Amino acid sequence: MERTPVWIMRQAGRYLPEYRAVRKNHSFSEMYKRPDLATEVTLQPIDILGVDAAILFSDILVVPEAMGMELHFSEGKGPQFPSPLRDEAALKALRPVDSNQDLGFVMEAIREIRRSLADRVPLIGFAGAPWTLATYMIEGGGSKTFQHAKKWRFARPDLLRILVEKIADVVIDYCRAQMDAGAQAIQIFDSWAGILDTDGFEEFALAPVRRIISEIKRPGIPVIYFPKGGMTWLDRVADCGADVIGVDWTIPLDAARRITGDRVALQGNMDPTALYAPPEAIRDQVRSVLASYGKGHGHIGNLGHGMLPDIPVEHTRAYVDAMKEFSPAWK
Amino acid sequence: MERTPVWIMRQAGRYLPEYRAVRKNHSFSEMYKRPDLATEVTLQPIDILGVDAAILFSDILVVPEAMGMELHFSEGKGPQFPSPLRDEAALKALRPVDSNQDLGFVMEAIREIRRSLADRVPLIGFAGAPWTLATYMIEGGGSKTFQHAKKWRFARPDLLRILVEKIADVVIDYCRAQMDAGAQAIQIFDSWAGILDTDGFEEFALAPVRRIISEIKRPGIPVIYFPKGGMTWLDRVADCGADVIGVDWTIPLDAARRITGDRVALQGNMDPTALYAPPEAIRDQVRSVLASYGKGHGHIGNLGHGMLPDIPVEHTRAYVDAMKEFSPAWK
Repeated sequence: MERTPVWIMRQAGRYLPEYRAVRKNHSFSEMYKRPDLATEVTLQPIDILGVDAAILFSDILVVPEAMGMELHFSEGKGPQFPSPLRDEAALKALRPVDSNQDLGFVMEAIREIRRSLADRVPLIGFAGAPWTLATYMIEGGGSKTFQHAKKWRFARPDLLRILVEKIADVVIDYCRAQMDAGAQAIQIFDSWAGILDTDGFEEFALAPVRRIISEIKRPGIPVIYFPKGGMTWLDRVADCGADVIGVDWTIPLDAARRITGDRVALQGNMDPTALYAPPEAIRDQVRSVLASYGKGHGHIGNLGHGMLPDIPVEHTRAYVDAMKEFSPAWK
Repeated sequence: MERTPVWIMRQAGRYLPEYRAVRKNHSFSEMYKRPDLATEVTLQPIDILGVDAAILFSDILVVPEAMGMELHFSEGKGPQFPSPLRDEAALKALRPVDSNQDLGFVMEAIREIRRSLADRVPLIGFAGAPWTLATYMIEGGGSKTFQHAKKWRFARPDLLRILVEKIADVVIDYCRAQMDAGAQAIQIFDSWAGILDTDGFEEFALAPVRRIISEIKRPGIPVIYFPKGGMTWLDRVADCGADVIGVDWTIPLDAARRITGDRVALQGNMDPTALYAPPEAIRDQVRSVLASYGKGHGHIGNLGHGMLPDIPVEHTRAYVDAMKEFSPAWK
């Protein structure tokens, strides 16, 4: 491609009126569990924004749910595990997962999306990284302090070690099943990497991700690892086996590229809240992101985190259009 | 001192039974507004833990309160500005502050603490950094997404620029008044530095902090700047004029020291949640922090953020004791 490809994390989401129209009549979990609905919203941004890739509409928490944890999505409060994982008994009660069976609805959605896309753009599948999933499972939901998960990290590293390995086993099976069903790239989201300390990141986040990637790698299917908030650890992250590293907005792309060298491609990194700015300012931001990455292939345009629900669609389109307009000069 | 000096952010806090005994009979705002109560809790950790410095018991939000914003501390929800700053009219309504008058209770507390300390240990005063205070003022309280503050950063940089400069003016006056009253060091807390993008950090966080430090610097009174979450920017942070930079736990001290060189001393950086671990593991963590910093003066022992309320006191004491026991070997 003679320009930088571009897609957006959470490009199928509430900022789109077309998404809200579907959401009005269906619960969030119904939307990701029904392949027809998941297909509909996965395809929306392809036409509306003209992005260069589709990403499966789903949620990283389907994995803990398949492992036996009751999961609720409540309006306003976000995802909740009403019985969070807080002791060894709960850890032992986790079930092994056969993704093709227990998460068959995801594979059906992937197959239906691929049929509907008819190779217009590739489809990215995804999974949560073990540490990030463990955090949700232990906390029971989002958190400001993550005190329960961090307590395990320091006071019960023995249990946390078992937990992330159990999750990694499921994620491996889950990613393989997604690729079998037709996913053409896999992104591993480590949304809470940044709350760890350096040694904890190495042991409980990066090590299981390294194992996952080595076990799922297939020719022609790139793996993207996104350790949000973990930009101080980019040097070691670049050796995790991923083809692409997601970069958040706390480090300029030129600095990230100096650190990672030719080891990986970089994806990102415009601050999602930059899309609050008027379109002309968004175009300036895009120019600056492209200039920061510099010449050469290996850049995937994206934001540094997911789309926010209150961004105007025309601002989002201005971002995608500007990436398409300005990036050929950097090839 | 032939060992590494050690104190702890939020060392006067809820984890101490002696603090809770005072808190039971007084509201949080009463505690920081009454010099006798502020003195009592400021001194508690000196005797209980044996730390090497006292830090004024107060709150960074007294500054926006003095600027005219109504402030509530409600149980469980944290600090709230019921009328957050969301438009130009609110920005214009902010009042200039004469710290000795409008924040006289802080200066009285400082004088009373100094008298009670009788030079046993030095007293650290503090202020919030302009960006962090602006964030609270715009959001109206804590936030997960900081969407209002970030909206100003990208959609109304003109207003944000005025706001951080107004706050910086007050912080300069406030820090000078604290030093006049007897503060022997000043820490500037930029707790929300890490939610900014690189350019935004430079313009809205670091630039006003640079101005503050250049205007408040006095011989013999060190200034500590703590840009929490901003560890990817350490190189430029090291040139802000501060004598000491606070380091959080997302970067090892050896890496931080390589980046900052001889420009500044470093304070930190043990993960506060490491104090959930049993004392023997805490001692191992302290050994590892000291080894990571390495030989030479210029290290101030501290956690990478404030004390959590549910840490056992004996774990906290194990941390302080271990710093005292192991650090002489690194001098």
